[in-house]
Amino acid sequence: MDQDHPGGGGSSKPVTISYIAETAGVSVPTVSKVINGRSGVSADTRARVEALVTEYGYRKSGTPNRSNMMDLVFDELVDMWGVEIIRGVQRAARKHRVGVVLSEFGPQGNAIRYWIDDALDRRPACVVTVAQLSREQRDRLRARGIPLVVFDPTVELPDDVPFVGATNWAGGRAATRHLTDLGHRHIAMISGPDHILCSRARLDGYRSAMDAANLPVHPDLMVRTDPTQEAGHTAARALLDRPDRPTAIFTGNDLQALGVYQAARDAGLRIPTDLSVVGFDDLPVTALLDPPLTTVHQPLTEMATAATELALALGRGEKPPQLRLELATTLTVRKSTAPPGSR
Amino acid sequence: MDQDHPGGGGSSKPVTISYIAETAGVSVPTVSKVINGRSGVSADTRARVEALVTEYGYRKSGTPNRSNMMDLVFDELVDMWGVEIIRGVQRAARKHRVGVVLSEFGPQGNAIRYWIDDALDRRPACVVTVAQLSREQRDRLRARGIPLVVFDPTVELPDDVPFVGATNWAGGRAATRHLTDLGHRHIAMISGPDHILCSRARLDGYRSAMDAANLPVHPDLMVRTDPTQEAGHTAARALLDRPDRPTAIFTGNDLQALGVYQAARDAGLRIPTDLSVVGFDDLPVTALLDPPLTTVHQPLTEMATAATELALALGRGEKPPQLRLELATTLTVRKSTAPPGSR
Repeated sequence: MDQDHPGGGGSSKPVTISYIAETAGVSVPTVSKVINGRSGVSADTRARVEALVTEYGYRKSGTPNRSNMMDLVFDELVDMWGVEIIRGVQRAARKHRVGVVLSEFGPQGNAIRYWIDDALDRRPACVVTVAQLSREQRDRLRARGIPLVVFDPTVELPDDVPFVGATNWAGGRAATRHLTDLGHRHIAMISGPDHILCSRARLDGYRSAMDAANLPVHPDLMVRTDPTQEAGHTAARALLDRPDRPTAIFTGNDLQALGVYQAARDAGLRIPTDLSVVGFDDLPVTALLDPPLTTVHQPLTEMATAATELALALGRGEKPPQLRLELATTLTVRKSTAPPGSR
Repeated sequence: MDQDHPGGGGSSKPVTISYIAETAGVSVPTVSKVINGRSGVSADTRARVEALVTEYGYRKSGTPNRSNMMDLVFDELVDMWGVEIIRGVQRAARKHRVGVVLSEFGPQGNAIRYWIDDALDRRPACVVTVAQLSREQRDRLRARGIPLVVFDPTVELPDDVPFVGATNWAGGRAATRHLTDLGHRHIAMISGPDHILCSRARLDGYRSAMDAANLPVHPDLMVRTDPTQEAGHTAARALLDRPDRPTAIFTGNDLQALGVYQAARDAGLRIPTDLSVVGFDDLPVTALLDPPLTTVHQPLTEMATAATELALALGRGEKPPQLRLELATTLTVRKSTAPPGSR
């Protein structure tokens, strides 16, 4: 048994706050502040103490780590998919009879900075976040032994941060293969911005399927723009104005596909006779469009349930075999795709 | 000072649990059970004790009634409006730095029966409910001094239950007046079922506006059906098959209006040239339709903010001047309405 790590391995002797203070070379009140998530500690000191707390697995006595509450955090709730995510979290939370504290950081500038303090006070069993937490927020949760699972990360995360996402690359590939299988050769993609991880994965899936079908990818037919209806509209207009206009457009999300519908109407083109369209997300609205949209289904509800189950298991101190996973997307074929018309 | 009501008026002497037991003619443990929301008390006794608790304003000592948490309850989260409601609650909760515990009872049969027990354990500052709570659930909250505000009630509530709704009658009237102002005389309404209070209010608004325009209401042009797209489709098909088909259809909600769009396409009728359509709710999807839908806007987010502010004020022990209110609907005129075409 390594005497320098009294809390590690099989030792039953609990790590004391004074041991951590001594090792870190700080006072006991300072360690206490860090452990209790209070301010008034320099970033340096906080980091040093937190590293020790994590290493030794220190647990405050008298405050059980297990709680029948968990936290769910959003940057901003989005009409189109907020409910599907919440519903998935609720499904798992009901199963385990855990209450869900839902926080929305709110519009930019208005983001709630107090969330992390209040969450640490609540000592939830775990946190599932759709919001992008800062490194400092993640570290403070970790120091308190509160496990965190990221829902569908938009950026690359350190290897030790658990997450549940979707197979975006495979989804982009399946959507494009559906179009090449129908006989399309001139296929454009309107993609989201490159700094969003899932946009890049979907675009790469498109390129991969074009490659597999021995089709060249014209750089002009690969547009990167905002993930909005307006941006999709503008991008599609430009594409449909080209003399060699594409016979099919695959979009990085359903809102952009709505913009393509608008542009097709503007240009007097019928979907799918003159133009095939495939979206991504399978938002509830897509089935209501005229024609109903062929799109890649993201299992948002199942992803949220899986993220919650994972977070709760970590909160119970279990060691789940998989801490980072992607659930499979599936192509939902509706009426917006058909073989290219004879022109 | 009335000695029979030691807790009322200006008395500073707190009501004791034994005083309530004596007055109710039951044992102290029985009163304790009722106050703590536990089972094992007959409905009769519970009602008697709760009436006294409410009357005397008994507060358990040692358990502060003020909490920095509140509960928000849904029967089932609905894609189309769940987020707007949650966003409104979050807006008010952020302002007061209150954490929101969100519960969804879940699909029928699966409804969480433990919610009320867990909520009583949590002692939230207040409860805002979109779900229909039972009378027993309401009484148990009241016995614990936890104020309840109902969001957009679907049934008539006892006079002492606070709520925030929308002006459904006025909205139905405004929608119909918009059509009569355009020159329509033959206007059908596809309404929701009569047992839903807002459906009845919207239908009565339609009748009132028809009356005001001196237009007869044909019973055949007033259809009551499910508040779904499918039901709207079926009802609109039948209306459009009539030899004296209406030149305009007002629907009790936007989903039914989507069904009317389908039926118009089936019948080869153009909107708005051949048929004007007005919906109700102003769901985000309605602006994306072709043509964008004219519809009555329900201020769901503002209603949720108002319900939360009201509930939190009650939780702070304040006496808000208005405990039951309706926020005004407004007509959002888009492209689905026009003067009736010459036929």
